[in-house]
Formats: sequence, structure tokens, C-alpha cells
Amino acid sequence: MIKRELINNNIFTEGQLDKIHNATIEILKENGIEILSEDARKLLKQNGAKVKDEQVYISEKMIEEAIESAPKKFTMYARNPDNNVTIGGKNTVLSPGYGAPFVMDYEKGRRRALYEDYVKFTKLAGYSNFMDVVGGVLVEPTDVDDEIRHGKMMKAAVKYTDKCLMGSAMGAKKAKESIEMASIVYGGMDYVKEHPVLLTLINTNSPLQIDSRMSDALIVHSKHNQPIVVASLSMTGTTAPTTIAGALVQQNAEILTGIIVSQMVNPGAPVIYGSASSVVDLKTGNLAIGNPETAKMFNGTAQIARYYGLPSRGGGALTDSLKPDAQAGYESMMNFMSAVKSGFNFILHSAGLLENYMTMSFEKFLIDDEIVGIVDNYEAGIKVNEDELAKEVIKHVGSSGNFIAEQHTYDHMRDLREPILSMKERYFSNKDQPDTAKRANKMYKEILKDYECPPLDKKIEEKLDKYIENLKD
Amino acid sequence: MIKRELINNNIFTEGQLDKIHNATIEILKENGIEILSEDARKLLKQNGAKVKDEQVYISEKMIEEAIESAPKKFTMYARNPDNNVTIGGKNTVLSPGYGAPFVMDYEKGRRRALYEDYVKFTKLAGYSNFMDVVGGVLVEPTDVDDEIRHGKMMKAAVKYTDKCLMGSAMGAKKAKESIEMASIVYGGMDYVKEHPVLLTLINTNSPLQIDSRMSDALIVHSKHNQPIVVASLSMTGTTAPTTIAGALVQQNAEILTGIIVSQMVNPGAPVIYGSASSVVDLKTGNLAIGNPETAKMFNGTAQIARYYGLPSRGGGALTDSLKPDAQAGYESMMNFMSAVKSGFNFILHSAGLLENYMTMSFEKFLIDDEIVGIVDNYEAGIKVNEDELAKEVIKHVGSSGNFIAEQHTYDHMRDLREPILSMKERYFSNKDQPDTAKRANKMYKEILKDYECPPLDKKIEEKLDKYIENLKD
Repeated sequence: MIKRELINNNIFTEGQLDKIHNATIEILKENGIEILSEDARKLLKQNGAKVKDEQVYISEKMIEEAIESAPKKFTMYARNPDNNVTIGGKNTVLSPGYGAPFVMDYEKGRRRALYEDYVKFTKLAGYSNFMDVVGGVLVEPTDVDDEIRHGKMMKAAVKYTDKCLMGSAMGAKKAKESIEMASIVYGGMDYVKEHPVLLTLINTNSPLQIDSRMSDALIVHSKHNQPIVVASLSMTGTTAPTTIAGALVQQNAEILTGIIVSQMVNPGAPVIYGSASSVVDLKTGNLAIGNPETAKMFNGTAQIARYYGLPSRGGGALTDSLKPDAQAGYESMMNFMSAVKSGFNFILHSAGLLENYMTMSFEKFLIDDEIVGIVDNYEAGIKVNEDELAKEVIKHVGSSGNFIAEQHTYDHMRDLREPILSMKERYFSNKDQPDTAKRANKMYKEILKDYECPPLDKKIEEKLDKYIENLKD
Repeated sequence: MIKRELINNNIFTEGQLDKIHNATIEILKENGIEILSEDARKLLKQNGAKVKDEQVYISEKMIEEAIESAPKKFTMYARNPDNNVTIGGKNTVLSPGYGAPFVMDYEKGRRRALYEDYVKFTKLAGYSNFMDVVGGVLVEPTDVDDEIRHGKMMKAAVKYTDKCLMGSAMGAKKAKESIEMASIVYGGMDYVKEHPVLLTLINTNSPLQIDSRMSDALIVHSKHNQPIVVASLSMTGTTAPTTIAGALVQQNAEILTGIIVSQMVNPGAPVIYGSASSVVDLKTGNLAIGNPETAKMFNGTAQIARYYGLPSRGGGALTDSLKPDAQAGYESMMNFMSAVKSGFNFILHSAGLLENYMTMSFEKFLIDDEIVGIVDNYEAGIKVNEDELAKEVIKHVGSSGNFIAEQHTYDHMRDLREPILSMKERYFSNKDQPDTAKRANKMYKEILKDYECPPLDKKIEEKLDKYIENLKD
């Protein structure tokens, strides 16, 4: 988790935010939004929305009421209370990459992700000082049957870490199953209903649609008081307007609708205003999430969420590069740093991704963990007090002296962040100077070799295994 | 040049700035500052400073008067007026790396810099859409005799580009010679005295000293109305306190003294408040300019300059990495992006450096030029108007449609920044996917091969050559 001590970057003026808000209201009133879930449509109708076939028309009042009832911040509970995190305010809670179907390392290159990779990345997330929420589709374990995949993933997250967890968004049935598994881990459904323990990603279907699977999962999670991120994944020029302001208006309509549904299910249910929208590269037609326009879109997203007083999600250590190279470094830093400075409360995709959202790289995971550490230190700002101002030692050393032997230097020399992956060595020869990816390769293997699981009650593990076994029927 | 449309990042509160200011006044009053130039001491004494041996004591009033007379912004004139730049306000004017004794490329590795390297980097700076000020010690041409080195460097900058130029800070004689060469290029000394044409770096000698060579060059340049950057290069724990706030207090005392001298020489002479201070790595004792503390120190520097209403310099695409790898990418982006967002008006070291300030890399130059392009686009912000808000096209496409064939998409699709070095291709195979450094290697050779010099009057070139020839006597 990063504690942001610096002021949030605002990309819009207050007047521009009003314009985006008003345009959103106009869209939701005049075009409405397509809701494919019957249950969700019914709920919206009961609460006064105009519904015509699958199209639902949302009023300004419905937006106001949802914003009013949604909490400004909430705490997520881990099975180890030291790992509880509060989402909202000055906190930026982190989670590693999500949803990649491929993995990559220095030796074997890129290949389909398997369950063993899922376990390895879970351990790296467990090792990290910054990753707070694990589980979900950390990578897609393509060798595990779909019907038990969500169960196996949650079991791995519980077994190999004691951090906060993610739930399933794959329809009502799997959402319920993930909540039931959580009740095994946390000692009963009563506890779960009182405590947010699973964070789940609910994606809209741009433009202006929410599908049944996502709506139904949303309803289940909100009913159980479990936090959801409602996120738009729109792409400029294809599923959204090609202008950033326009894309933000459209995604705003989608996200607010999801939040409205959650608040109708259960007023006060924790929700996060989210986005994984991006621009599309002209030449190739591919996602261009390393482009500055994507970072600006995220910046705008965070500010719009703040305008509504809602916790926000967006950004990540995102890059279009296929390798853990210089481009991966500069794009990921740009995206991650600007996301934190934008004031996001939750950043998914904070470690490991290459090739936009397609590949999780073991080396990139540690590169990103270092990027996160750097930004964390930056966001702590500069302390200013009598001791830090150092007047006495400056006067004592005087002109053309040296500070190295001073007590003040000794007292503060350990304040400096110690780099973990970054190299501060001098040049010695053109040969045998390992680059960042090579150093990360060596380091991740050592971490996995030495990794120790946190203790887990044997009975809980057995119950989880049995629960997953039963899912096969 | 980058035009900053977004709000500057402030790392201090107004009250914290007052504390830094007051601590600085106390240091300058009680300890004073050592001025090794007799001319500078004489000037300070004439203007009311208390002088004891080489120690000069500066009063608050002297600071106030200097701040009052120094210009808030000024224009630099290039021999091609299209390349004139204004330093101050929302502009961030850029210059490539400076002072490195080594160069590096993908094939030959790291080696001593030669004059032919100087020419090559000058051409790359000429090619760049973002580098505004060239010349000076772009790299150190170690095969050129010291007595003519500044002349040869300026001649190369004039011949291979038509951008703004840098002058010599190596004592009064060389400073004068660089101004005389400028008068050849710009058609006479009268023009030069009326127009800032040479930007010169004046470094203090931390802690709390300014040496003769720098003071004397400062006096010459200010007398001729040529802009100077007064910069502290202090290092925490050795030549400055190890706390950031303390290092900023000490460098403030040094920089303000340089600015006071310039304004005593010639009230209204253009000056820039500058810093290349950095933190030192604990383990190795080496500079750690890729550390977040260095970036924060720069952030503070820019804000302190703004507090005094002075144009500012600091930051750069800085890294401690020895190679153009992931670390070089993330550290350079962090430093460059945060420097721009901090509101610096002039950023030296914007392209090419590796191994803190030691090595100029051809590949890194293009990596940084791409970083600069990305940040430039980011800083332009997001446009919000009726057309960009895209309400009509959103309503027209409606739910579950596609924007690809819309006129609005066609009208705006070219608004997106087109990446130059960054790759947006999909994965095709583990082999033959060149990484960023390899692509940059190919690209820099093509740029040099195709480079065309801007036209230069033969007579001016001959006069410059003759002038340099005469320096040998």
C-alpha cells in the first residue's frame, strides 16, 4: 500500500468536471444503457428507472442517491489482520497484474499460463511489501477446468499468502461460490456479511451495456456486502469515442449505472469507481496502454471519482512492450507514477504485465515492485522540521567542509530508500554487467526458492479442497 | 520545448517554504559564504556585504533586491528565429546531457568521448523535436586541446544546428571568447548585448563556496547580459546535509548568492535558479540520481524558485543504470516526468545520459527523446469542449455499437500521439523481437546517415575557424 502525502494531480478544472457530469446525465437520460440481466433491470424499474426492452434510462436523482449512499472509504479484511487495508482517502491499495493468458520468463520466453505459474506469481505477490490484494485471475491457469478454476485460484491465494482476496465475477453461481469459500476461510457467513473480504471486478461492456454475467455477480457481491470495482474497459475509436473527454463521458455513464445497481441492491455496499479504458494505436489497431493518452484518461478517471466522493481504481504498471526492456521501464513508470499521483485508491495491474494485458513476466514483476517502491518513497514527500532543516550542522561544517563524519549525517543516513533491484554500482567493464531483466531473473528464482507460506489451519485447507472437489459435480 | 498546461506539483506548503527561506537567511548571515574571486568579493563589499577574508555575509535585503531585479522570464535567440525559446512561465526548455567524459553504443560499449562523438550527438540534438539549447559540454571531446575545446564545441553546435547555444563557464577568458564567437555568429557585439544568445552553467562549490573560475565567468556573462544558470551540485551526506530539507537550505544559500552577484554586476541580467544536487547511495558511496529522493529534491528546488519568482532549472532523464535497460527506462521517466510536473523552466540532461552523469549513450538519447515526447503529450492535458465531449456520436452509436466508422472518429483519430521508438506491435515469436535499445541503435544510425545541416553563411564559418585557430597562441 502506498500512503499518498502529496497533493493529488488534477487534470480538469471544476467547470470541466461539471461539463463531463452534465454530458453523462444527458446520455443516460436520452440513450440510456443496455442491461442484459433481467434481475438488474427489474431492480432498476422497481426503483423508478424507465425501462424499454433491455434499455434502461437513468435519472440524475438516481445518480445522486447512489453517490449519497456509497461509502467514501471502507476496510478490507485479510486472514492476517496485519494485512487489512482501507480503500479510500490517501491510501493507494495495490494488486498485481490480472487476467493475462500468457506468462514469460527470461529462459523459456512466452507461453500459455498454467496453474503452476499462478502459484509462483501468488508467491511473488506474497513476498512483495506492496501488493495488498491477491487472488482472482492473477494469471489465467489455462490447464484448470473452468468450473473449478475460481476455486483453485482462491485456494492458492489463501494457502500461499495471508493478504486480502479477490472474488469471482463470472456470474451469480461462481460469485456465490467464492463468497462461500471466503466464509470457510473467515469462519462463517455471518463474519463475511459484516466484513468486506473479497474484492471483485465488475466490467461494463462498452459502449453503454452491462452484460448478464457481470450484473448478476454484482448483485450477489453487493447483497453480501462485498466490495466491487465497477470498471469500464472501453477503447477509443472502437468501443468509445476517439476523444479522451468523450471516452470519459461514456465510461462515466457505464460506471455510475453499475454503482447505482449496487446501491439499489444494498445501500451502503462498498463500491469503487473504476476504469481500464485505453486508447488504440492507429498503425496497428492494438491497445496502446503505454501511450500518454491512456495515462491522462486514468488521471481524469481518478478526478471524476473524487468529484463524486467515491473511491477510485485505475492505472497500473502498464506497458505495450513485449519484453522487460527500456520501453517497459519508461511506460510502466509513467503509468504507475501518474496513477498514484492522480489519487487512485486501488491500482490493479501494479506488477508483472507486459504486452498490454496479455503476458505476466516474472522479471517484470520485480521491476514493477521496484517501480512501486520508488513511487511509494516519492509520495512520502519531504519532511520539514528543525532537525531536517539541519541549520546547526550546516553552520558547523561551514564553507568547503565535509558532512561525512557528522552525527547528523549518521543519524539520518538510513532514511534513504535502499534500492532492491536498481543498481548503483560503478562501471567496471563492458562484459558481465547484468542488465535489469537478468538481475530480476536471478532474484525471482531466489525468492521462490526461499518462499515460506504463512501458517494456515489444516482444517480450513481440507474444507476448501473438499468444497472445490464438490464443484466438479 | 514542452508547454505545461497542467498545474505544477508542489511538494511544500507555503509555511514550509518560509521555514526554508528563514533557515537560508540565518545561514547566510551567520556562516556566510566563501567567495574565492576577488572581483566578486569587491562587488559584494561595494554593495554593502560584510566581508571577512574570503567569507562574505549576505543580508535578507540583498536577497530581496536581487529577486526584485532578476527577470521572471526571458527569451533566448537562436540563429534561426524559429528556434528562439522563452525561459520562464509555462515553458520547459530542454537541453541534452552535459559533461559526460564517456560515450557508449550497442556495438562498441563504453569508451572515452571524442570530438567525432560530440558532432554525432550535436546532430541527434539537431534532429530532436524537443532539444532547444545545444553546445557547451554535450560530451567532453577529450581529444581536443583544452585551450580550444570550448571554441570547437561552439563551432560544431553552430555548424550542425541552428538552435540556441551554450557558453563557457571556464573562467573569465573563455567566457569572453565564447561571447566573441557568438558575436561572429549573430552579426556583432551590439546585437549580443541586447539579446540573450548564450546560456551558461555556473556551478557553486558545495558546501557554501563559489570558486574563482565560476564567479569570474558569471561576471563576464552577466555584464554582457547573457543568461546564466546558477546551480548547486551538492551531494547529501558529503557536501550537504543528508536530509533533503537541509540540502535544500544549503543549496538555496549558494544559488541565491550567485544570483545576487549577477544582479550586482548588471541588474536585470537573466538568471535561472538551478540545481543538480543529488543523494548518495549508502552501500556504494556513488551518486544515486535515479533514487526518488533526488527527484523530490528537484521537486522542492522548482518550488523554491517559484517562491522567489525566478525561472528554474533541474532534473533530466537521469538514471544510475549502466545500460539502456529497464532501470534506465523507469528511472529516467520518473526523473524527467517529475521534473516537468515540478514546473522547471529549463531541464538540462534531457537526453542521452547513463551511469548518472558519466556516459552519453546513442541509444539512450533516442529513448529519452521518446520519454520527452510522451511527457510533452501528457502535459498538454485533456481538451474539454462540445466536440471533444462527443455527446452526439455517443448517442448515435448507442448501446453495443462501434465507433470505428464514425466521422467523429475519423476527424480525431490523428490527435493520438504516434509513438516513434515505442513498439505497439503484437507478439509474433520469441525470436527476432528487437528490444528498445536495439531499435534505438538502428534508428540513431539512420538519423546520422540522413542528417542535413542547416544552411550557414560560409563567411561566418571561416571567421569562426580563424577565431579558434587564434586561440592556440
